[in-house]
Amino acid sequence: MPPTFSDRMSHVPKSFIREILKDALMPDTISFAGGLPNRTLFPTEAIKAATRKVFALYGNGLFQYSASEGLIDLREWIAGRYKEKGLHVPLENILITNGSQQGLDLLGKILLNAGDGFILEEPGYLGAIQAFALYRARFLPVPVSENGMDTKKLRAILESEQPKLIYTVPNFQNPSGITYPEENRHAVADIIRGTKTLFIEDDPYGDLRFTKTKHTSFKTLLPDNTVLLGSFSKIVVPGLRIGWIAAPDPIMQKLVIAKQASDLHTNPFAQCVMHQYLRDNDLDAHIAKIVTAYSAQKEVMRNSILRHFPAEVTSTNPEGGMFLWLTLPQGASALDLLALAKKDKVCFVPGDPFYINQSHRNTLRLNYSCADIETIETGMGKLANAIKTLLAR
Amino acid sequence: MPPTFSDRMSHVPKSFIREILKDALMPDTISFAGGLPNRTLFPTEAIKAATRKVFALYGNGLFQYSASEGLIDLREWIAGRYKEKGLHVPLENILITNGSQQGLDLLGKILLNAGDGFILEEPGYLGAIQAFALYRARFLPVPVSENGMDTKKLRAILESEQPKLIYTVPNFQNPSGITYPEENRHAVADIIRGTKTLFIEDDPYGDLRFTKTKHTSFKTLLPDNTVLLGSFSKIVVPGLRIGWIAAPDPIMQKLVIAKQASDLHTNPFAQCVMHQYLRDNDLDAHIAKIVTAYSAQKEVMRNSILRHFPAEVTSTNPEGGMFLWLTLPQGASALDLLALAKKDKVCFVPGDPFYINQSHRNTLRLNYSCADIETIETGMGKLANAIKTLLAR
Repeated sequence: MPPTFSDRMSHVPKSFIREILKDALMPDTISFAGGLPNRTLFPTEAIKAATRKVFALYGNGLFQYSASEGLIDLREWIAGRYKEKGLHVPLENILITNGSQQGLDLLGKILLNAGDGFILEEPGYLGAIQAFALYRARFLPVPVSENGMDTKKLRAILESEQPKLIYTVPNFQNPSGITYPEENRHAVADIIRGTKTLFIEDDPYGDLRFTKTKHTSFKTLLPDNTVLLGSFSKIVVPGLRIGWIAAPDPIMQKLVIAKQASDLHTNPFAQCVMHQYLRDNDLDAHIAKIVTAYSAQKEVMRNSILRHFPAEVTSTNPEGGMFLWLTLPQGASALDLLALAKKDKVCFVPGDPFYINQSHRNTLRLNYSCADIETIETGMGKLANAIKTLLAR
Repeated sequence: MPPTFSDRMSHVPKSFIREILKDALMPDTISFAGGLPNRTLFPTEAIKAATRKVFALYGNGLFQYSASEGLIDLREWIAGRYKEKGLHVPLENILITNGSQQGLDLLGKILLNAGDGFILEEPGYLGAIQAFALYRARFLPVPVSENGMDTKKLRAILESEQPKLIYTVPNFQNPSGITYPEENRHAVADIIRGTKTLFIEDDPYGDLRFTKTKHTSFKTLLPDNTVLLGSFSKIVVPGLRIGWIAAPDPIMQKLVIAKQASDLHTNPFAQCVMHQYLRDNDLDAHIAKIVTAYSAQKEVMRNSILRHFPAEVTSTNPEGGMFLWLTLPQGASALDLLALAKKDKVCFVPGDPFYINQSHRNTLRLNYSCADIETIETGMGKLANAIKTLLAR
C-alpha cells in the first residue's frame, strides 16, 4: 500500500513547466519556453583544460569526502569577486551549494515553520515558489513591474504581518525580465530596514547586463539582514551545479548544519574544476561574449514585437538576463494562446505558474537566450499570428 | 538582529564527529575516527580516462541543465546491477541523488510530519539521525547486535505505535559493523509485513563483503514497501557525490518533485563520468582490491584486540565494511577513554552520538579502512594502554 505522505507535499505546485518542456523538446518546435543558458556559449574547452590540470595537481585528493562549507579557494574567489563589486563578504560567510536552488531549500529548511509569512514577487521565480511551498510558507505576493516592487503593497503587508522572509530577484528577474530601478531599491530597503524580515537577494543574472547602468545591491542597503544567492550556472555552466549563499554569521552556522544533513557537501571535483577554470580564464571576457549574444537576441525579439504584434500587447524591455515578459489585453488567456501557438509549432510559458493560485492570466514568459536570430524572427512571426487569431475570436 | 530559526533546527544534534575529526586531521595523530574510504584505492586514473572520453563524446552536452531523475544510462546500469543480484528494480524506479545522504533528506521531506514515529537502529547511523531529526521524527530506537535487530522490542513498538518508517543498514552497519543474520532478516520482515511502516534498506557497504555468505535483501522479503538506498561512495569514490534511491512508483513520483525543489538535479558531468567509468572498467575486480585491503586491515585490528586488550573488552567481528565496534565494561565511559587516547595521539568516535539522547556510553567505533597495517598495530597498542589506564582507575 502506498504510504501517507507528509503534509508539506500537498503544498507543492505541480511542475507545469516540466510538462510544457516536453513539447519544447520536439525537434520541429521553436521554443521560447526554456529557462536554459545557451549551450553553444559554454566554455567547454577551457573547462576541459581545467579538468586536466586538477587531475595533475590533486589526483586522488579530488575524490575524497570534503568540507560542508565548500572548497576554501573557491569561496575565496567568490569573496574577491564581491570585493571588486564593492561588497564586503568574507569567505567565512560563503557556503557552496549545488546550484542556487539548493540555497533556497536550505534557507527554507533553517528558517520556515509552517504558516510563516513569506513575501515574494508576483510574478515570481517558480523554483522559489516550489522550494518554499515545501516548507509550507504562507505566501504574501507583492506585484513587481518595470517600476520595481510595489512599495505601497509592501508597506501594507509589513504593517499587518511579520513576514519571516522577503525573496527578490532585483536584476533581470525570472520570469519578467524587470530590474528594480535605483530609487525603488532605496524605497524597498527603507521599508524593510529595522524590521525582523530577512532579505533574500537572488542574483543569478546580475552579470548579464546589456547596458552600462549600475544598481546598488540590497546587501549594501541592508548589510546585516541580507542573504545573497549566487550561481555560476548562467555565466559559466549549469552542469557543474555550483552556486553559493552568502549569509551573516548566525545564519551561516545553521546553513552548514542543514547542508550537512541534506547531502554532506557539494561535489569537490566540480568545485576544483570550477576554481581552476576561474583562475586560468578571464571570466569577464567570457561574460562579455554571452552578453553580446543575448543582447542581440533580445533586440531581435523586442523588435519583432514592436513590428508584428498588435499594439495592445505590451512587453518589458530587459536590461539584461534571459527573459522578456508579454502582457496580452485584459481578459485574454495565455493558456489559450499556447494551445494555438503549439499548433503552429512555437511554444512559451504562460504566466500562470509564476503567480500564487491564479490561472488563465494574460501574461507569458519568452526566453531569448537559446534561439538564434533567424529562429527568433520565425518564431515571433508565428506567435504574432497566434495572437492575432486569439484576439480576433 | 539574528532571525528566529525554524523549530526543526532545534532538533538536530550538533556534529560531534565533526569536532572529533578536527583532531583526527592533525598529522601526528593516528585516527580510527574517520568514516572515509581509503583514498589510496581510488581508481583515479580510470576516472581520468573516463573524463577524457566523455568530453570527446558529449562536449557541451555535459554541462546543460538535465533531468531531475538522473542520467538514463546510469539508472539503467544500476537496474542491471540489481538484476545480477536477483532484484527486480526497473530504471523508472531509480532516482540519482547527491550521495545517499540526500536520499535520506528526500525521504524525510516527502514522508515525515513532526512527531511521526521513526524506528532506527541503536546504535544507528549518525547521518540518518541528523537528516530525520530535521523533519522532527519521533525516534523509536531498537537495539541491534551481532544477532541483528531485537525482534521483541521491534514487535512491542509495532503493537503500540504506527511508525511511518523503519531505517536499517543490514550489511556491515555504520557504526557497529554488524550484519543481520539470515533468520533475523526473515523475522524482522515477518513483523513489518502487512503494516503501514515503510522499510528503508540503506546498503552503502553491501559489496564490501569479506566472506562468501550471501544474505537476502529486504527488497526480496518486503518487495512492495521497501525503499533501497545505494551509493558509489564506498566502491568507487565519494567525491563524485553519486548515490541513488530505488522506490515504488507512488514514492518515486514524490521523490522527483522533492529532488527538483531541493536542487533541480544531480551533476550531469559527474553522472556521465561515473557511467563511463562503470562501462569501461570491471567494477567487481576493483571491489575485490578494496575488499582484500580492508579485510586484511580488519584482521590486524581484530587480532590486536584479541592479543592486547583486556578480556572484558569485547568487539564485533565484521564480515565486511569499514567499522568495528568495541564495548568496554559496564560503567566505563568511551568519552573518558578518548581523553586519555588523545594524549597518546590516537583517536576514535565514542558511541554517544549513535544513540538517541545518551551520553557516556561504554561503546566506541573504530574505523579500519584508512590506516595501513603498521599504523593499525601502533594505534591499537596505544589504545590498549589507554584502556588499561582507564580500567585501572
